[in-house]
Amino acid sequence: MSQPKKSVLVINGPNLNLLGTREPAIYGTETLEDVEQRVRRRAAELGCEVDFRQSNLEGEIVTWIQTAGDYYDAVILNPGAFAHYSYAISDAVTAGSVRLVEVHITNIHAREEFRHRSVIAPVAVGMICGLGTLGYELALEAAVRC
Amino acid sequence: MSQPKKSVLVINGPNLNLLGTREPAIYGTETLEDVEQRVRRRAAELGCEVDFRQSNLEGEIVTWIQTAGDYYDAVILNPGAFAHYSYAISDAVTAGSVRLVEVHITNIHAREEFRHRSVIAPVAVGMICGLGTLGYELALEAAVRC
Amino acid sequence: MSQPKKSVLVINGPNLNLLGTREPAIYGTETLEDVEQRVRRRAAELGCEVDFRQSNLEGEIVTWIQTAGDYYDAVILNPGAFAHYSYAISDAVTAGSVRLVEVHITNIHAREEFRHRSVIAPVAVGMICGLGTLGYELALEAAVRC
Amino acid sequence: MSQPKKSVLVINGPNLNLLGTREPAIYGTETLEDVEQRVRRRAAELGCEVDFRQSNLEGEIVTWIQTAGDYYDAVILNPGAFAHYSYAISDAVTAGSVRLVEVHITNIHAREEFRHRSVIAPVAVGMICGLGTLGYELALEAAVRC
Amino acid sequence: MSQPKKSVLVINGPNLNLLGTREPAIYGTETLEDVEQRVRRRAAELGCEVDFRQSNLEGEIVTWIQTAGDYYDAVILNPGAFAHYSYAISDAVTAGSVRLVEVHITNIHAREEFRHRSVIAPVAVGMICGLGTLGYELALEAAVRC
Amino acid sequence: MSQPKKSVLVINGPNLNLLGTREPAIYGTETLEDVEQRVRRRAAELGCEVDFRQSNLEGEIVTWIQTAGDYYDAVILNPGAFAHYSYAISDAVTAGSVRLVEVHITNIHAREEFRHRSVIAPVAVGMICGLGTLGYELALEAAVRC
Amino acid sequence: MSQPKKSVLVINGPNLNLLGTREPAIYGTETLEDVEQRVRRRAAELGCEVDFRQSNLEGEIVTWIQTAGDYYDAVILNPGAFAHYSYAISDAVTAGSVRLVEVHITNIHAREEFRHRSVIAPVAVGMICGLGTLGYELALEAAVRC
Amino acid sequence: MSQPKKSVLVINGPNLNLLGTREPAIYGTETLEDVEQRVRRRAAELGCEVDFRQSNLEGEIVTWIQTAGDYYDAVILNPGAFAHYSYAISDAVTAGSVRLVEVHITNIHAREEFRHRSVIAPVAVGMICGLGTLGYELALEAAVRC
Amino acid sequence: MSQPKKSVLVINGPNLNLLGTREPAIYGTETLEDVEQRVRRRAAELGCEVDFRQSNLEGEIVTWIQTAGDYYDAVILNPGAFAHYSYAISDAVTAGSVRLVEVHITNIHAREEFRHRSVIAPVAVGMICGLGTLGYELALEAAVRC
Amino acid sequence: MSQPKKSVLVINGPNLNLLGTREPAIYGTETLEDVEQRVRRRAAELGCEVDFRQSNLEGEIVTWIQTAGDYYDAVILNPGAFAHYSYAISDAVTAGSVRLVEVHITNIHAREEFRHRSVIAPVAVGMICGLGTLGYELALEAAVRC
Amino acid sequence: MSQPKKSVLVINGPNLNLLGTREPAIYGTETLEDVEQRVRRRAAELGCEVDFRQSNLEGEIVTWIQTAGDYYDAVILNPGAFAHYSYAISDAVTAGSVRLVEVHITNIHAREEFRHRSVIAPVAVGMICGLGTLGYELALEAAVRC
Amino acid sequence: MSQPKKSVLVINGPNLNLLGTREPAIYGTETLEDVEQRVRRRAAELGCEVDFRQSNLEGEIVTWIQTAGDYYDAVILNPGAFAHYSYAISDAVTAGSVRLVEVHITNIHAREEFRHRSVIAPVAVGMICGLGTLGYELALEAAVRC
Repeated sequence: MSQPKKSVLVINGPNLNLLGTREPAIYGTETLEDVEQRVRRRAAELGCEVDFRQSNLEGEIVTWIQTAGDYYDAVILNPGAFAHYSYAISDAVTAGSVRLVEVHITNIHAREEFRHRSVIAPVAVGMICGLGTLGYELALEAAVRC
Repeated sequence: MSQPKKSVLVINGPNLNLLGTREPAIYGTETLEDVEQRVRRRAAELGCEVDFRQSNLEGEIVTWIQTAGDYYDAVILNPGAFAHYSYAISDAVTAGSVRLVEVHITNIHAREEFRHRSVIAPVAVGMICGLGTLGYELALEAAVRC
Repeated sequence: MSQPKKSVLVINGPNLNLLGTREPAIYGTETLEDVEQRVRRRAAELGCEVDFRQSNLEGEIVTWIQTAGDYYDAVILNPGAFAHYSYAISDAVTAGSVRLVEVHITNIHAREEFRHRSVIAPVAVGMICGLGTLGYELALEAAVRC
Repeated sequence: MSQPKKSVLVINGPNLNLLGTREPAIYGTETLEDVEQRVRRRAAELGCEVDFRQSNLEGEIVTWIQTAGDYYDAVILNPGAFAHYSYAISDAVTAGSVRLVEVHITNIHAREEFRHRSVIAPVAVGMICGLGTLGYELALEAAVRC
Repeated sequence: MSQPKKSVLVINGPNLNLLGTREPAIYGTETLEDVEQRVRRRAAELGCEVDFRQSNLEGEIVTWIQTAGDYYDAVILNPGAFAHYSYAISDAVTAGSVRLVEVHITNIHAREEFRHRSVIAPVAVGMICGLGTLGYELALEAAVRC
Repeated sequence: MSQPKKSVLVINGPNLNLLGTREPAIYGTETLEDVEQRVRRRAAELGCEVDFRQSNLEGEIVTWIQTAGDYYDAVILNPGAFAHYSYAISDAVTAGSVRLVEVHITNIHAREEFRHRSVIAPVAVGMICGLGTLGYELALEAAVRC
Repeated sequence: MSQPKKSVLVINGPNLNLLGTREPAIYGTETLEDVEQRVRRRAAELGCEVDFRQSNLEGEIVTWIQTAGDYYDAVILNPGAFAHYSYAISDAVTAGSVRLVEVHITNIHAREEFRHRSVIAPVAVGMICGLGTLGYELALEAAVRC
Repeated sequence: MSQPKKSVLVINGPNLNLLGTREPAIYGTETLEDVEQRVRRRAAELGCEVDFRQSNLEGEIVTWIQTAGDYYDAVILNPGAFAHYSYAISDAVTAGSVRLVEVHITNIHAREEFRHRSVIAPVAVGMICGLGTLGYELALEAAVRC
Repeated sequence: MSQPKKSVLVINGPNLNLLGTREPAIYGTETLEDVEQRVRRRAAELGCEVDFRQSNLEGEIVTWIQTAGDYYDAVILNPGAFAHYSYAISDAVTAGSVRLVEVHITNIHAREEFRHRSVIAPVAVGMICGLGTLGYELALEAAVRC
Repeated sequence: MSQPKKSVLVINGPNLNLLGTREPAIYGTETLEDVEQRVRRRAAELGCEVDFRQSNLEGEIVTWIQTAGDYYDAVILNPGAFAHYSYAISDAVTAGSVRLVEVHITNIHAREEFRHRSVIAPVAVGMICGLGTLGYELALEAAVRC
Repeated sequence: MSQPKKSVLVINGPNLNLLGTREPAIYGTETLEDVEQRVRRRAAELGCEVDFRQSNLEGEIVTWIQTAGDYYDAVILNPGAFAHYSYAISDAVTAGSVRLVEVHITNIHAREEFRHRSVIAPVAVGMICGLGTLGYELALEAAVRC
Repeated sequence: MSQPKKSVLVINGPNLNLLGTREPAIYGTETLEDVEQRVRRRAAELGCEVDFRQSNLEGEIVTWIQTAGDYYDAVILNPGAFAHYSYAISDAVTAGSVRLVEVHITNIHAREEFRHRSVIAPVAVGMICGLGTLGYELALEAAVRC
């Protein structure tokens, strides 16, 4: 009997809606739609399902994560700048008891001092940073396989 | 001539909508509805009125507190994780000139380092923490009596 | 068959013997005897017994707390300035295995920087501050009920 | 051939909707509407156009700043308390590539320690603080002229 | 009966005598004389008088500020690097009881860490930074109008 | 009609009972009795009365200072090592509302880092340090004259 | 004409030779040989070549990285505890001009404070942590594809 | 001619009177009397004499140490929590010119952050920690032999 | 044969030329000339000679202190704000090998944080602060007698 | 049936090969060979076996500790300067699951600031410092008996 | 055709006028004139010209450095204590665009904590310290040759 | 009778074997062999002998420095990144009692924050940095002459 497909929710935080159209020198030229497509292709290869959401509102992301555990096997979160101060999101991860992999397109350890620390990382399963938008694909594989 | 009844607004911040259903080992098994009921019973004993609101959105809480002074004698706020960084809520308390008692279900001083400091506490009348959901009842009495 | 009455020991630390007679603008006009009376009234309502002690000597408070667990169900401690550096009292709470509720008449978070941190709080059940001498009554209820 | 009029978006952050009605001793008696009128008069003198918005929601301000560059020559932002922790707004300024002048009605350097640092200032063109609501007018001139 | 003209003293601190001739990429190509001229034009528009002084000697600036209150309605000070350590100038502002507006041509918050803090700002009326030499004009208007 | 004589209480804290007999290279060869005699001679010259007490017990010093205001015009306190952490003594000074001059025989600013800060100094009238046992005489004159 | 195969050097730092045999609760039961095998399988899928080395000697790892650029397209480094203080390895990465992906089996952000910071991360392309030994496979894909 | 027996004073600080009866998981099941007996046995083997004292009062320990040099060849001190803030005891060691070996039953470096630093250690001959109550015996040998 | 009179140089630093005329609430109503007169009277009583100088220039004070040892037995220095950052004056004291007593009219420990530390104090004989202008007289006695 | 002899490995870190020949004022005149002999004598008394090793190479010590658990009942480590930064050795202790007693000949708490903290101590059983080379003997007894 | 001689300005800061006459144990017995002579001899060997200046006034040094670039190929600066806080001199180096080599006679890294950091060093070409007055000669060679 | 030639050991630490071939923009194009040749030429002029060694292994450098005093009059050490954390090398300098001059090719004070501090500098005679490879020559002269 076949095992049910795993499903993963990909959440992008503030300013990631601008991906590809602004600051291409740092973030590359792929748009968030491009990222969605490449992740969907990878999901097809891995035999899992993915949903995509983006919000600039911290509280909205909190709400999504709270209930993600009821509908998804894992969450992939690129928290953008919320990584550095949103204890509300951090608490939502703990409260929602969902497995979460944190992704950053850029290497946060090679940028401004305030970006070196993520308050969400301690409650995540793990983190991938600096590997560009490929990081989303790798996070998907990690979310599905480990 | 009888004195008009005092009224108190109870605001719960991010992730408290999950109370009782998630992490019962830390937060207990009472839901936010249970808390509302026990606070309403206490309000009846104390002869005051209470309203209940919850939000994961910082800005919504800011707005509620700004105008609370026009409709309520006091606010009881469990700011959740916002306690530790929301200067916007802190400013709203000052700007709204409302008497506010801060409540935390857990003992924030016995948890992670970042939870030891509340940026809202300095503008609150006082704080009650670590006494479980009974803390809401005690805060109500404080809001009404002192 | 009736349950035995609960008993609570209320300990006041350094300078609280001056309550009501010095700095009334900050600490109010109630004396420590007034506080004792109001707490005794509340104890009668709650059906519990209370004892009161005050000391300016750290070591005496350490000794009281060490053995409090043998005679009392809980301790209410207003440690005064000892809150900010007495690890000896903190250790006594842990060693004595007694349930302790920390009380401060003023909002320690709204005063000098050094008062923001209590080294006793992490080993207390919870803390009540800023609610004036009503805080003792609320602490009593917490000590008895939760 | 005449040059097109410059246009500027003025954004006010959390609690500034209360301007003039609360804490007049600190913030003065002018309301946000009064500020709008005096800025509009100055805009007329300078030959530019201005729009006004206010929000208590961090994410809403993020969204406004992201797209401001498409419709306005510059943004004047009074971030209120968001100045001190909203890296999301800071990132939006960078991402949106819009020229932004930060304004504070009060002298943030003469108030509480936490107000001395603005995380938005490093990505702003410049900052004006402590000059009351006149600061908005001066920021407008700076936005238009430099 | 006409009101007497207001008068303002503009003081420039260390290295500002080199303005326009050195590091034009950072400080622009206007010389201190150019700045004086544009400020004088603005003074004429505002109907006030201005005097200009520059010194590399901390003690000389202290002396000027001490007595400025006897001859001027306000002081505009670009303290240069003295902003970051000259408590003697800071004390002179307080002692001299003169209204002082601090100006920096560059955005000090976007430069080296040590430039982020001004020890003079807490005793100034307000500060303008990052708006280039236009900042002097805006400071003049603030000195005269608010 | 003659004015009543002023009276001053001189309190010496922990380890000062060893004065003159231990570590003479640092603290000199005068014993605490010698100090008492020279201060009594100075008191005679100044026309005031002095009492002397020493204790190694923090709580005892707290108690002395609490009531000193009822019997003395001022207190001279050499807190010894208590200077660096006894907030209980600091609170007693505030609570007791007595004028207190702090004295240290050695220059605490030229010794170990932890001695540079006195938590009692902020609530004292002033401090004299590094002038040897003459400091007690000078403190007496200050206590009587200013 | 076919493109030459890419080659990657995988370096494991101190104590990783014990993988799988010690502390399996934290690091899992796979040995370093198991890791090598799964990475080799992945390499076969990705069409690239991999070499494996392990050392407890900082200087040996420095030497390997210095010359890695001459023989490999990229380096995957699990620096173990060297991550937290070996500026010599960090300098070797810069000096050797080799593309390096840092891998940690555990989530270093969820462990002791000293593990939160990697001095190598700022000179790496990116980092993967917390995803177990799957992290090596993902790093390989990143090393080959991005 | 036989050499006179050496004598050592063993002082135990706050809460050590509870040894063995409270928190056995951390401090073991030996009581302070058991420790005294095993140290007396060791003293017999080493041919020296020992006295035992315990106090919860900082000032009492200060007094004991001040005069210990007159009656004992060395002091063994387990300062308990006083280790972390009692500069008064630290000064007494220096003033009393007695050789002192500091003992902690537990490994203070493996416990809470505040326990990592002892303000007494810099003036002690040496410190033994983490070796349980055997530490007292080893300290005795050190006190007698080195 | 009579001993030659001792001579003392009193140096006042920046802003002290304004003494008595500005901020009397903090610094009192005595001018620097009044201080000079009362110190001269005390000098007459003590049988010593005094010279008075004031400067706002750090370098001038450095020069005075360098050579003070050739002409005076001691220096009394009120460094004003230079106390908090002038290592050049601090070095001059050491280099000039002159006995120096530091005086502050106000209690620097009860004012702003930055005033709590004097970089000159570690090289001074001692410090007197908070005792008003009487502090100069006491410093003179200390300079002459100890 | 007799119990097998316990065996202990004594490891000395960098620069300890110079013991006795360099800096005798600090480290004494005993050579490492002398230490070995006295420890061997003690081992004979205690009925255990000891091996001795010394290395200046961090990685070599890591390797020794990794496998020590397979051949020895405990390790005595004088890590020298590695104590203050070698997290690799610290990890080896944890990974090797060997009981380790840390020894320092001098009192590290009475020396330079950087020596006050040992990163190895938190994973050791306990630490002995300041008791000279006798410390090795005491550590051996602790390793065998507790 | 011969190349024009290079010329170097040697500036000595506060208290260096006392060189050789004060604190010879630290600074040696050579006077500043002796230093000038040995540097002139070296200049002759190197075929360059040198000028010497000394000042205790920060502003004077600022002015010298501002214009040094117009007359000299390089500056050698011994800033004395100004090294540790004079951002004005630091800015003058940048503004004056002159090549500057910083010299300290003593090893500033082996002295008081505050001397370890030079705010001028980051804008200097390089620094020589601890090599006595020979450091001036070496700096001259560096100024001329590199 | 002629004086024996002085001999100096030049040690280069990690990554300096790459000098000239990697990152020439920062470190220049001279190889370590080129540096050796220019230093040998200078040695010939100064009439001294030099030996050259390089290692990436901290422990090897420790060993070289320990015994350097037996064969050389001084050591010139470019510790590379070891400068910032190798207390083992620092201890070897002290233990080996050899005169050591520290050299850095680049100006460590103008680079990353972690490079500003050298833990070896406090035990070195002096330091030369930022003067390129000429720094080795100057260090040689210092090693021989001062």
